[in-house]
Amino acid sequence: MGKRIVIALGGNALGSNLPEQMLAVKKTAKAIADLIEEGHEVIISHGNGPQVGMIQRAMTELTRSDPEKYIPCPLSVCVAMSQGYIGYDLQNALREELLDRGIQKGVATVLTQVLVDEQDPAFQHPTKPIGAFMTKAEADRLIAERGYQVVEDAGRGYRRVVASPMPQGIVEIDTIHALVDRGLVVVACGGGGIPVFATQGHHLKGAAAVIDKDFASCKLAEQVDADCLIILTAVEKVAVHFGKPDQQWLSELTPELADRLIAQGEFAPGSMLPKVQAAVAFARSKPGRTALITLLEKAKEGIAGHTGTRIHL
Amino acid sequence: MGKRIVIALGGNALGSNLPEQMLAVKKTAKAIADLIEEGHEVIISHGNGPQVGMIQRAMTELTRSDPEKYIPCPLSVCVAMSQGYIGYDLQNALREELLDRGIQKGVATVLTQVLVDEQDPAFQHPTKPIGAFMTKAEADRLIAERGYQVVEDAGRGYRRVVASPMPQGIVEIDTIHALVDRGLVVVACGGGGIPVFATQGHHLKGAAAVIDKDFASCKLAEQVDADCLIILTAVEKVAVHFGKPDQQWLSELTPELADRLIAQGEFAPGSMLPKVQAAVAFARSKPGRTALITLLEKAKEGIAGHTGTRIHL
Repeated sequence: MGKRIVIALGGNALGSNLPEQMLAVKKTAKAIADLIEEGHEVIISHGNGPQVGMIQRAMTELTRSDPEKYIPCPLSVCVAMSQGYIGYDLQNALREELLDRGIQKGVATVLTQVLVDEQDPAFQHPTKPIGAFMTKAEADRLIAERGYQVVEDAGRGYRRVVASPMPQGIVEIDTIHALVDRGLVVVACGGGGIPVFATQGHHLKGAAAVIDKDFASCKLAEQVDADCLIILTAVEKVAVHFGKPDQQWLSELTPELADRLIAQGEFAPGSMLPKVQAAVAFARSKPGRTALITLLEKAKEGIAGHTGTRIHL
Repeated sequence: MGKRIVIALGGNALGSNLPEQMLAVKKTAKAIADLIEEGHEVIISHGNGPQVGMIQRAMTELTRSDPEKYIPCPLSVCVAMSQGYIGYDLQNALREELLDRGIQKGVATVLTQVLVDEQDPAFQHPTKPIGAFMTKAEADRLIAERGYQVVEDAGRGYRRVVASPMPQGIVEIDTIHALVDRGLVVVACGGGGIPVFATQGHHLKGAAAVIDKDFASCKLAEQVDADCLIILTAVEKVAVHFGKPDQQWLSELTPELADRLIAQGEFAPGSMLPKVQAAVAFARSKPGRTALITLLEKAKEGIAGHTGTRIHL
């Protein structure tokens, strides 16, 4: 029987510029179509690192070219733009691949906001560099005028850093449900979602933050009651002693074992660590839920239980 | 009883830069919430002139700053980004206004592609200026390398022109239906939609074109079987002899009378003309359908039959 699957695409599934993305989404579409062809319901989320970086840089160049007319573009607006940009290519590539296989199934991109908490400790220690390199003068001006936090990257200039808070909930969850229930394939939570704060009253305020796409995908998978969360990455399986002579691939992980390996520092922060953490959180969220970490081209085999690292209770 | 209404927002409903848009959407949200509060089903479309202009210009500045890394961004991609940017502000403003009134109703932005025909005569005579002004050298390079069509704007430099073809159909119509049926308020066909050609096979190819948002809204209204298409503009009613001493406001128009007035050159091309043409096309598409042209703040009165120009069989 078909499963409900949330699939989190990493950067390598999308490429890092316009021509690369056009090619990358074709390969990605084939891997996703394989799952749909087997009768699974698929909801797709994706990262946006290079894309939002490109948009941020473009908006910075715009402000530089005409500072009277164009104020710096908020990061949340750049994320919204990146969802449009990536969703457009991704939904088209998948639509085409499905139709080529005789599968009549619409693909919908949902502009998605994800709630974050102003009290999240991440806001005390922003670590995520974002946008173009700046001169000291530019950096000082943005610190003074807009309260940006900026770090110096030795030799390359100054760069804004933002927080990476945990996702608390998906604002457009009803939209996603309505489309999934109608049998559409949904692209949602692009780039981890547009980060917003719930304020007093009903206003949602854009947050200067970047939500980790694996944690956002975990939240999405929980909220759509998925059976499976697939986190795609550049390796077929998670390993302990990664890159060392005694490296060992892992096929199955319990949350408890994963916690021990995390505590031992087995997984690289900003790389495998958030993936394992998101997978563990999903596996723990309800009995019967399985997270799978593997390569894009192994997703189908992984779902069938033949490869990848599976995390479940 | 509630009607199904497509409401086409013009530029004045959105402002022309980031801070203006944030303010403008609040006023727009109130007018739309008035209709929803009266029990109407509302689907929103909108223009994107200043917004896509800003994005185009930003992407041009990016290419200028690093031509090795960044190729010029296709117009269709810029439209996709503008749908994300505008949809984000618009859906949030409306969500907030509805919640403030105690109305629990989700608002969803649908990334929307609209089919255009490669044989459309508009492609023979591109007329719509788009993006930043360029030097002659920049223009010549883009003509040679990318086949752009460019016009000289006396004294201000060179500008790309693109076609404005007629919309043939909405690719994501099933997505829109699924959301409307579920009681959500939908934002769709932003900027007239991302223009795409259907090619051999199932590939959709981005078109270097801009679809008039009023014609796209008419197509949307037909395809969702709306009772009413509201085209918002800067005047309360359509007039004959507009701006002259014998100016006369029109309250009711039949398609036949509208055709005669169009033939007499009563309506300015690029301004009131496409609005009247789109309204007439919708009124003719099925008995019982009414198009209304009026001010944003008069939409509610207009739907009640008290003002605006109503076009119907």
